Amino acid sequence: MINRLVIIGVGLIGSSLALSLKQKKYVKTVIGCGRSEDNLKKGIELGVLDDYELSISKAIKGADVVVVAVPLGAMDSVFKQMYSALDQATIITDVGSAKATVLRDAQNSLGEHFKQFVPGHPIAGSENSGVEAGFSSLYQDRKVILTPVKDTNNEAVSIIENMWKETGALVELMSVEHHDKVLAATSHLPHMLAFSLVSHLSKMSDQDEIFNYAAGGFRDFTRIASSDPVMWRDICMANGDALLELISGFKNELDQIANAIKEQNPQALFELFRDSKHTRDQLRDL
Amino acid sequence: MINRLVIIGVGLIGSSLALSLKQKKYVKTVIGCGRSEDNLKKGIELGVLDDYELSISKAIKGADVVVVAVPLGAMDSVFKQMYSALDQATIITDVGSAKATVLRDAQNSLGEHFKQFVPGHPIAGSENSGVEAGFSSLYQDRKVILTPVKDTNNEAVSIIENMWKETGALVELMSVEHHDKVLAATSHLPHMLAFSLVSHLSKMSDQDEIFNYAAGGFRDFTRIASSDPVMWRDICMANGDALLELISGFKNELDQIANAIKEQNPQALFELFRDSKHTRDQLRDL
Repeated sequence: MINRLVIIGVGLIGSSLALSLKQKKYVKTVIGCGRSEDNLKKGIELGVLDDYELSISKAIKGADVVVVAVPLGAMDSVFKQMYSALDQATIITDVGSAKATVLRDAQNSLGEHFKQFVPGHPIAGSENSGVEAGFSSLYQDRKVILTPVKDTNNEAVSIIENMWKETGALVELMSVEHHDKVLAATSHLPHMLAFSLVSHLSKMSDQDEIFNYAAGGFRDFTRIASSDPVMWRDICMANGDALLELISGFKNELDQIANAIKEQNPQALFELFRDSKHTRDQLRDL
Repeated sequence: MINRLVIIGVGLIGSSLALSLKQKKYVKTVIGCGRSEDNLKKGIELGVLDDYELSISKAIKGADVVVVAVPLGAMDSVFKQMYSALDQATIITDVGSAKATVLRDAQNSLGEHFKQFVPGHPIAGSENSGVEAGFSSLYQDRKVILTPVKDTNNEAVSIIENMWKETGALVELMSVEHHDKVLAATSHLPHMLAFSLVSHLSKMSDQDEIFNYAAGGFRDFTRIASSDPVMWRDICMANGDALLELISGFKNELDQIANAIKEQNPQALFELFRDSKHTRDQLRDL
């Protein structure tokens, strides 16, 4: 049970967490904090928040848990604003999609509170963003990855683990490096492909007509290109090395298809498609 | 109303057409033809077919409409086997995903029956294939593109147009060249990206674990990589030029992202993602 939960950056992820914990009566008071007062007021109207503060230092006073749910590029500034107002007992976590830069920022800016910081990442979301997009079942059966380091307080890890379990999530612990590599492959690269595809097609001369003939497959494939551009800008900057390696490998793979077409080699195409289908079919059962 | 409809190649597309026309009582008898007798027997069990023939020339005797629903690479051979057994009045159509090679094959092999051939492509389907995957509502509100040429008999076009309209589809006429360009962009390229992504990730050392953390976005994105490899091999071979041009343009787009990451240019990333999101958001309302 959490007495006072503070969410800094009230969007899809934070509001879904609040709604879920409230539904389970696992939290007494949820305080929102962010730059847009309209958004925070909307959070109260929607029953996501009990109260709000525009000042980070006021918001976190007496907090049991602070969830930092801002874009990766804003983490360091938020940590710096938190530093002087943090209670000894307050536990801090985040929901960033890449973990190495968040850890670096926390280590630089949280000082003696760093041991109370539990880096986290719920593998959930949608292409919709904002407080209105939140819903209490978002985390049901979804994975939440925590990436504590050796300095991290074990009790803090347990408290964040229990908080996420309460939402129905499956919590796993992983190293920062492994997290960032796995997410680059399964999330960051696919988003780059979807953004690139939509961007490329939008530049073709008969744009409107092209999108007119976009069937279900195309819609599924490009849905993630509707994701928040600030969040994705920051993910690219934060997890750039892993992403660059994957983009390069992906281009080699695509070149294999292009070369097989140029060389009129149907067998090579068949084998590549057959193997990919085999791999993807297995994923259906997961 | 069609008296005798023959489907050569009874998979998802052909069986869905048969089920839909039967439901609307727009067809009297549906005859299946294909290489696998087991598959044709299953078609009868499932109520898709009334009868079947293993021989193409026997199957098409007295047919009002023959729908050729085989992979693109098998079209020419099927047309050749049809040639000597075709009645003057029989109308032929196909459902191939690229139209230039089908037209070439039909012109080469259907002789005087070429004017009775109406090239067609229902923009519908799923990653599932086979007669069992068929369902009667597959074409409801989906587009079907017909690409008749100047030699094509207008009456034949009308009959095929009416057949598809009966399934709930929206029929449009388009030039072959335009069809192949539009489909390369909205269907063929996305499939190549999905196949390439799954193929690349399956080669990474911690394969199984990577797929373990694949969330909803990844699943949507790669669903089409479960598509039939023979069909896609043939589409690549048939529409290679358009596809190669798109792959090249797509790689340039992806390079823009990679370069922005390398050059630490967050603004360029933001603008690209913002514009793509804007374009993709518009597609939601279509």
